[in-house]
Parts: sequence; structure tokens; C-alpha cells
Amino acid sequence: MTDDDQAILDANAVLYAAFNARDVEAMEALWATSAPVSCVHPGWNVIFGRVEVMDSWRAILTNPDQPRIVAGGAELRRYGDCAVVICRELVAGNPLASTNVLVREDGRWKLVHHQSGPVLRLS
Amino acid sequence: MTDDDQAILDANAVLYAAFNARDVEAMEALWATSAPVSCVHPGWNVIFGRVEVMDSWRAILTNPDQPRIVAGGAELRRYGDCAVVICRELVAGNPLASTNVLVREDGRWKLVHHQSGPVLRLS
Repeated sequence: MTDDDQAILDANAVLYAAFNARDVEAMEALWATSAPVSCVHPGWNVIFGRVEVMDSWRAILTNPDQPRIVAGGAELRRYGDCAVVICRELVAGNPLASTNVLVREDGRWKLVHHQSGPVLRLS
Repeated sequence: MTDDDQAILDANAVLYAAFNARDVEAMEALWATSAPVSCVHPGWNVIFGRVEVMDSWRAILTNPDQPRIVAGGAELRRYGDCAVVICRELVAGNPLASTNVLVREDGRWKLVHHQSGPVLRLS
């Protein structure tokens, strides 16, 4: 694994660390500011636009009833300056899978798209 | 929109046309053969590998009880030789959203990843 691949996986891990730390600022810093962003939370609608996506994360991270997330099994696909990470997630015992798309922006890997949805089981 | 952007959206549309036509060959031709592929069908497990992904599509396309799919609202994000298309889907009245990742392989746009999952509503 190259340093750059590790940088992508590190950025991907920030998503889940920020989630569990309820760290809105870290979440905002993770998402791209120039490239268009979008997000599909499980059971929500599709969300387009940085303001709208950040509003959704703020709602989740400031919700006192929001369970923690356990993420693992990250599979990295690298396509030049675009990367796709496929992850397993566990939220309150519910297995989910997510597709995270990252691009290089000003030399750093930033999230441009996240879709999470229910799966039958983790493995 | 460039011709190349149109080619990506055309490839994306093949996914849904093949689905409704129950055309396993067209589905097989759409997916990449060199790049690793993966798929998350709603409520299934995460599937990795071309053989496994194709087995899943064969099961869906040959299932006589499988409802048709209506897809629309494709939003294209292009990152060099990688593209992400975010779609709305409707299956038996159930609204879904999907993330489709395509890469250029031998000059043609091919699917490398598809995740579909339930959303609250289409808009």
C-alpha cells in the first residue's frame, strides 16, 4: 500500500471518527469544498450540495439519541485522483454497507459522496 | 455536456435497460472485466468479484417475481477516467437511490461498483 493509499484510508476513517466524536468541524473539514458533494443516509432522501449535506451531518452529530457507528472492512479502489472506499458499518446492531467517494482537492483527499444502506449481514 | 459525458450516462442507462429486459448478456458486457468490481443490492450482502457480482445479477434477472425498475434523475460526477452517477430508482413503488461507479476500460465506460438502497422518497 502506498502512502497515498494510506492517506485515502485515513481520510475515510475520519468520517467514522468524526461521527463517533460528534465532531461537526472535523466532518466539515473532511468534505470537499470545491467539488460538488452528495450524500445518501439510510432511509433519508438523496442530498445534494455542501450546505445541505453539512446540515444533515449536523443533525446526526448533534442528535443525543444517535447511536455510535462501528466501521471496518474498508476496501479501497483507486482511480487516479478519485478513490472509492467500500465499508461495512454497524449502527445499533444493524449491519450497513457504504460507498465513500473521495477526490484529491488542494493535495488532500476529501469526501465528495457517501451512500450508506442496510445489508443482510456484515460478512 | 460532452460526448464522453453522454457515453457515461448511456452506459449507466444500460444497467436499467438490461435489468428490465432481463438481459444477462448486456449486464455482463456492462461490467468491467479487468478492474475489480463490487455490488450492494438493497438488503443483500456486499458482493465482491466479477463472478459473484454476475451471479447476483443472474439471480435477479432470471427471477420471475422480480419487479421492473424505473430509474431517473441521474447526476453525473466526472473525475478523469472515473465517473460516479447518482440515480433515483423505483422498484414496486419503493423509492431507492443508487451510486454507480464507472471507469474507462479499453476506451469504453464500464461499471465497477453499484450500491442501491432505500430512501424516504424520490425527490
